[in-house]
Amino acid sequence: MVKPLKINAQRLWDSLMLFAKIGATDKGGCNRQALTDLDKQARDLWVSWAEDAGCSIRIDTMGNIFARREGLKDDLPVVMTGSHIDTQPTGGKFDGVYGVLASLEVIRSLNDQGVQTNHPIEAVVWTNEEGARFSPAMIGSGVWSGAFSLDYGHARMDKDGKTIQEELRRIDYEGDTPCKPDPIKGFIELHIEQGPILENEALQIGILTGVQGMNWYDLTIKGQPVHAGPTPMENRFDPFIGLHKIINKMYEMTAEYEPWSRITFGDITAIPGARNTVPEKLILAVDLRHPDKDILAEMDKRFRQIAHQECEAAGLSCQVGVEWQSPAVVFDSGCIEAVRKATQDLGYLSKEMVSGAGHDAVYVSRVAPTSMIFVPCEKGISHNEAEYSKPGDIEAGCNVLMNAIVELTS
Amino acid sequence: MVKPLKINAQRLWDSLMLFAKIGATDKGGCNRQALTDLDKQARDLWVSWAEDAGCSIRIDTMGNIFARREGLKDDLPVVMTGSHIDTQPTGGKFDGVYGVLASLEVIRSLNDQGVQTNHPIEAVVWTNEEGARFSPAMIGSGVWSGAFSLDYGHARMDKDGKTIQEELRRIDYEGDTPCKPDPIKGFIELHIEQGPILENEALQIGILTGVQGMNWYDLTIKGQPVHAGPTPMENRFDPFIGLHKIINKMYEMTAEYEPWSRITFGDITAIPGARNTVPEKLILAVDLRHPDKDILAEMDKRFRQIAHQECEAAGLSCQVGVEWQSPAVVFDSGCIEAVRKATQDLGYLSKEMVSGAGHDAVYVSRVAPTSMIFVPCEKGISHNEAEYSKPGDIEAGCNVLMNAIVELTS
Repeated sequence: MVKPLKINAQRLWDSLMLFAKIGATDKGGCNRQALTDLDKQARDLWVSWAEDAGCSIRIDTMGNIFARREGLKDDLPVVMTGSHIDTQPTGGKFDGVYGVLASLEVIRSLNDQGVQTNHPIEAVVWTNEEGARFSPAMIGSGVWSGAFSLDYGHARMDKDGKTIQEELRRIDYEGDTPCKPDPIKGFIELHIEQGPILENEALQIGILTGVQGMNWYDLTIKGQPVHAGPTPMENRFDPFIGLHKIINKMYEMTAEYEPWSRITFGDITAIPGARNTVPEKLILAVDLRHPDKDILAEMDKRFRQIAHQECEAAGLSCQVGVEWQSPAVVFDSGCIEAVRKATQDLGYLSKEMVSGAGHDAVYVSRVAPTSMIFVPCEKGISHNEAEYSKPGDIEAGCNVLMNAIVELTS
Repeated sequence: MVKPLKINAQRLWDSLMLFAKIGATDKGGCNRQALTDLDKQARDLWVSWAEDAGCSIRIDTMGNIFARREGLKDDLPVVMTGSHIDTQPTGGKFDGVYGVLASLEVIRSLNDQGVQTNHPIEAVVWTNEEGARFSPAMIGSGVWSGAFSLDYGHARMDKDGKTIQEELRRIDYEGDTPCKPDPIKGFIELHIEQGPILENEALQIGILTGVQGMNWYDLTIKGQPVHAGPTPMENRFDPFIGLHKIINKMYEMTAEYEPWSRITFGDITAIPGARNTVPEKLILAVDLRHPDKDILAEMDKRFRQIAHQECEAAGLSCQVGVEWQSPAVVFDSGCIEAVRKATQDLGYLSKEMVSGAGHDAVYVSRVAPTSMIFVPCEKGISHNEAEYSKPGDIEAGCNVLMNAIVELTS
């Protein structure tokens, strides 16, 4: 076989730094929220570069952009790669935009090196991945994959009451291509890790085998609101008694399912929240994750047991409300193998891992064979203006993407 | 010695039920907030009754009302008793108003029974004890005792921007008597317990020896905000780890100082408070109480140690901010003895106890020998429309008050 192909690392890095100027913040980050004028600027630039690279452009009714490079057998199912161009309000230079610029760099490098593929290739920009301006996150890939209806997607509203459809029209990105998949050979998304695992283990490439399942709960612990002074401790039904015991047991339980189990208490509210009154209620936001759906189901069951047992023991009552569930995703073995082979051929240090965060690839995997590639980001910091990935790692990830794409398109 | 004196129980109960109509709520409680038209109605009625009972009325510059019954030696220091007439927005029929009506009942009963006292007696209504309309609480007795300046008291503002002085003028209760004490022989405040101790132990009278000291803190626990998914548990600096350990140790520590120690976590805030992010900070409101100032100081020290040790062990940092301190009050031995003797002479089951809540008596004790009497309230429920005390207990408390006053005035 031929030596593995290599992308133009300098061109990729320069393109990243150029895009970082579109919405650049004082602290070195990026604020380029979905369907703003800045998002339009970035989209326009990306489209013009894709056209320069010989691609034909389609825009669908959710504003997702598809840049197509013809295959030798152009009626074969397409191989897709891409990510998103929008950022958090205080986001970084890499999250999302790395994947869309890398997909373009693969096409440019294939052109430079005169490589033709049997299957066509499409580079994709998905609309509103972050969910920062319009909730929920990943709405572009979500509608495309059938997780949400087009009407639902169009009607999502920002804080100022502007809908996605209004804003798509305003920036001229409501296309006429139906927002739904044609037959697809495979989809590979390249992304920064947004966690510290690769850096901690001094690895360059994460070969993604799936995405963690996640359950979001509101746990309500109910006691009796009494005055802080006159009421003896033994006469109280104090939700904080239940709280500290439940939290303790939840950390212990989660530790039994390491290394991929996660528990996060992201928010908590006391009602009425008066300094000198035992709260009537505490509401705790619980985020429970595991990549194995059976284990996550077991953790869910044990969570409910722990909550009820500890509350009962303290004379409290509790309620476990499920706010959201995202089932664990197991990626396609063929797509994983393409990434694995590319990584081995290139000789990068790597590990197989699951994604803890959601990505467009989660929705895409519902309708197409899918996998992902991760590269390290400094200290795992992301959704933050300090987000940073080294040029060498940026290059490595894109090299793996290029060779995996070529593998799938042959 | 003569048999202990008795008040007119029916008259006292009827007066309580009549006052309960001034601001009566649908659920059987009372909403008669400070310096409203309803407060004025209740004040006017109380003043007219006191005048009918032969008292002379003085109103001071904070609207505190003093109804004076002459003594045989009228230049001797006065013996005072009283409480407040204002309520919480969803308050009950007894909190405060019981003490002001009982003080009037003592004077009426002394009149009925032709008892004359050497020292003059004054029944007092203190302005804005609850702090529900104007913060802080106990502002009338606070200015009078010198804890706050008159200007400060006058300038306190409600939510609508109306000041205490404006409202005193509006309801015609800004008097010209200086708001400061003359020489005082003793002050006794009669109040419902607002806790469950007397009821639990089937007692009728609490002989108050002091008021708990209380410290209010904001404990800030600082960690690192990271994404709930990608960050392995062992890489986190999660404030909830510190939180559950600190809460657990604080309950254990507080239990060592039972039965009068109290710890209450009344409120908690997570920053940024996003469901899928480990919080950067938790801010916990801590209310720590004990009637012995040395023990409270020890609890304060141990609280700081626990917070710092547990945070350090978890790689977190913390800050203990003192929001408010109210030193423990030890009541006057002479006033306590007068209450004790009256209770014994009347044969009521009683216990010596401390108040967990603040009362006007706390400020009065700064400038005058002071004690308090408690009677049971059902299930300890107070600051609540369901607040209730039995007629027999209402009678018992007022009998103790009458005999203690007579003891002090002889």
